Amino acid sequence: METKYKIKLDASKNLPLYMQIAEHIKSLITSGEIKPGEKLLPIRKLAAELDVNPITVVNAYKYLEEQELASSRVGSGTYVTYRKSPTEAQTTASNRSNLLLEIEYNEYNLIDRGQIRIKPGIINFASASPSPELFPVKEFKNVLNEVLERDKGFAFSYQESQGYYPLRESIAEYIHTYNIKSSPEEIQIISGAQQGIDIITKVLIKPGDCIFIENPSYAGAISAFTSRGAKLVQIPINPDGIDLNYMEIKLKEQRPKFVYIMPCFQNPTGYLYSPSTRKGILELAEKYDFLIIEDDHLSDLSFSYEKVYPLKSDDKNNRVVYIKSFSKIFMPGLRIAFLIAHPDMYNDLIEAKHSSDISTSGFLQRAFDLYLRKGIMPSHIESTKRIYKERYDTMLQSLKQYLPEEIKFVPPAGGLNFWICLPEGYNSDNLYVECLKKDILFVPGSFFNPSQTPVPCFRLSFAATNKQEIEKGIESLAKTIEIFLKEYSDLKTPLPTYIPFL
Amino acid sequence: METKYKIKLDASKNLPLYMQIAEHIKSLITSGEIKPGEKLLPIRKLAAELDVNPITVVNAYKYLEEQELASSRVGSGTYVTYRKSPTEAQTTASNRSNLLLEIEYNEYNLIDRGQIRIKPGIINFASASPSPELFPVKEFKNVLNEVLERDKGFAFSYQESQGYYPLRESIAEYIHTYNIKSSPEEIQIISGAQQGIDIITKVLIKPGDCIFIENPSYAGAISAFTSRGAKLVQIPINPDGIDLNYMEIKLKEQRPKFVYIMPCFQNPTGYLYSPSTRKGILELAEKYDFLIIEDDHLSDLSFSYEKVYPLKSDDKNNRVVYIKSFSKIFMPGLRIAFLIAHPDMYNDLIEAKHSSDISTSGFLQRAFDLYLRKGIMPSHIESTKRIYKERYDTMLQSLKQYLPEEIKFVPPAGGLNFWICLPEGYNSDNLYVECLKKDILFVPGSFFNPSQTPVPCFRLSFAATNKQEIEKGIESLAKTIEIFLKEYSDLKTPLPTYIPFL
Repeated sequence: METKYKIKLDASKNLPLYMQIAEHIKSLITSGEIKPGEKLLPIRKLAAELDVNPITVVNAYKYLEEQELASSRVGSGTYVTYRKSPTEAQTTASNRSNLLLEIEYNEYNLIDRGQIRIKPGIINFASASPSPELFPVKEFKNVLNEVLERDKGFAFSYQESQGYYPLRESIAEYIHTYNIKSSPEEIQIISGAQQGIDIITKVLIKPGDCIFIENPSYAGAISAFTSRGAKLVQIPINPDGIDLNYMEIKLKEQRPKFVYIMPCFQNPTGYLYSPSTRKGILELAEKYDFLIIEDDHLSDLSFSYEKVYPLKSDDKNNRVVYIKSFSKIFMPGLRIAFLIAHPDMYNDLIEAKHSSDISTSGFLQRAFDLYLRKGIMPSHIESTKRIYKERYDTMLQSLKQYLPEEIKFVPPAGGLNFWICLPEGYNSDNLYVECLKKDILFVPGSFFNPSQTPVPCFRLSFAATNKQEIEKGIESLAKTIEIFLKEYSDLKTPLPTYIPFL
Repeated sequence: METKYKIKLDASKNLPLYMQIAEHIKSLITSGEIKPGEKLLPIRKLAAELDVNPITVVNAYKYLEEQELASSRVGSGTYVTYRKSPTEAQTTASNRSNLLLEIEYNEYNLIDRGQIRIKPGIINFASASPSPELFPVKEFKNVLNEVLERDKGFAFSYQESQGYYPLRESIAEYIHTYNIKSSPEEIQIISGAQQGIDIITKVLIKPGDCIFIENPSYAGAISAFTSRGAKLVQIPINPDGIDLNYMEIKLKEQRPKFVYIMPCFQNPTGYLYSPSTRKGILELAEKYDFLIIEDDHLSDLSFSYEKVYPLKSDDKNNRVVYIKSFSKIFMPGLRIAFLIAHPDMYNDLIEAKHSSDISTSGFLQRAFDLYLRKGIMPSHIESTKRIYKERYDTMLQSLKQYLPEEIKFVPPAGGLNFWICLPEGYNSDNLYVECLKKDILFVPGSFFNPSQTPVPCFRLSFAATNKQEIEKGIESLAKTIEIFLKEYSDLKTPLPTYIPFL
């Protein structure tokens, strides 16, 4: 920290700690050592440096605000307002484009968290979640009421941490169609795939342990892994799946506890693992003795004539922990998913689930069980897929029609996302800002790596947009890119190459 | 590990790792170095020692089973079965009572996890959860259907990670009756109090950080804290609340990130913090700069004429993070609770919530919002309280009537639990085993401390039993205790004293 903030606190003094801090900073401000317009040290940073609770610093800053020496800006920090000349302040806003990005990122984060503060009229290629008109609300309402008639108060009792047994039965039956054999004893119900990722990490990872992930990868998983103190190693993904050669080089350097992958229409790239990549990664798992966490939320959405099966269906030696989400093909708000692991892991998994939220809503589990037992899930998925396929076709056609030819992408064989790459050296964070001005929203590639390093690529999703929006949006996006490539050509920065050197 | 298991594994060999391990152990068994009946090293332990994945050891042991050299017992381990004389095996079952305890604990754990494999006819004083006949199912069914009519598919979209805004509004309004002032911006919706404990820990604790807890305390919280690598310091609780003198001594030795307490009818003791303890702990929080996590699931259940308010209602300086559960007073299966923290913590909290399960079911949040807005919650709580009060009175009267006079307890002023203490030196784990034989279930005190140290005290809950069961159960419990005190008098072991020396 800047040494001027340094202060020796004395807990035995009659003056509360926060006042001791505030008085010290006040003296720095009035003496001019901290300049008008200058940002005060971030709360957590100062708290860590002085070894006090962040609340103490908050209270100190609040006191400074009451004294009209400083003011706080939401999401930004606390700034010194005590000043003689008001012009000085403007020098702190270093760079307009950076500032814009910061503000808009905050907005974006809200969206990705499922928050819906998107301004009307915006075309949302950021969301990979189905729009509510696709949900089978009427059918689900019927099963909800059937459950209440049948189970009454028991629908709202505590439920087993492993999950409502009949639901585990009907899931074991249902996933036969995925070529996966399982039993109710091997199924753990979770409150969505994100929780599955979190509890698997809780069970398997100690701080400092190593996890291999695809590059790029799902931000929510990255966040769960880092919150448990894992060390992440990124393995590039190619259109035929994770780069096995590069992976084996890394495996010789260090052994991961597990490799986290999305073999079917990967997020964000949409890439599908080829048969030989599937075979290869299972062999590596045996050879180097690691587990594979397969996150499957899109295997149902193959748009070719060939059905796609999860990697778990090839897993002879129980190397794959399978996490299945229904958020993209059924309803994200259901918050029910499941996980299949090695029988040996269940005691720890149940313990981890229990200490996370005790159990998933028994009421919703019972309703979902009934829904599955009615056998209408396959036809619901078929009709959802038809709608997605239309949107996919529209986006593919529009991209081919409008995009400048220097823009590269590999059309995915299914799923909900296109992964589009600007020429090397361009930063898709900047394009993101430009597109927002045109009311086009997408997710820049920096969102999909742990250090949020800018990359030339970005993710376009068609899940939440209709035909007209897609056509209009892609045309406008293409125009913006054309201008962007010219205007930003002198702003190109040497970005880290996406595929590491081999 | 025992050195005989030591083996140098060679990943480059053609023999898979699990076979290398299995062959080595096989040679130990046939040579007699590992004796018939002997338990093989636990899977995780051997895996850690050999630095291989547990699955590899599982496969090795499975191979030994196929070779009929060993067999596994559920929940116990893998034992060598290859033998000449079958009598040797019996020597391994060291102590019948220990074994019984182990088996029954497994059973008990199932119960506390909300699993319902309790044999019929048992009187369940272990469960502190309301029985389903107390739930307002009819009213809740109405609001569920109203929500579906009103919101249709939107009820099953992703929801904001902080929680459905109207629900946060109606909660801010509702908790005025608890003398707590808050705003929708300061409320975080969580999938039950257990999740609140987990995400607060995620936000505040790094491995090695210190947390103070009451002794005894809630097992689910202890489990969440230890899973995050926290160091726990236990502060004894007295009938008037946590022991502040002892706490201050400990505070001079180390500073906790927070103190986790249940000031209103603490779990498991039922004790209520006195006004001076409430005042004292808030003062200590200021003086020594720590946060207080208040877990409130029972403040509604005061059986005296005086209304009890959460500690949060006295909190002037935002020192208290308030976690409110409705599981005991409404329906445990709802899996909706909320948390109020300092405004400065929300970014981190939302991040932690998002990486845990993205959001709590929006459908159930919407229904609960409507339920609160109808204003029927207070009358529901009143009628639940009346039923609980009857059960409380019955249990208190039965305890007074039947218990031997050397058994001590302080009748709680509310809540759902009695904390009963055997004379010093007796181990309530042993009483637990004896009572199970009489079909009486309770929770021994060892369950409520991190090291599961046996203690003389145990928890009796009346939430899930009716008047007849309570009368019959307490009479039978009292008889069992009388016999127990005699039969086990020579088995008394010097247990750690419950209230530490000051």
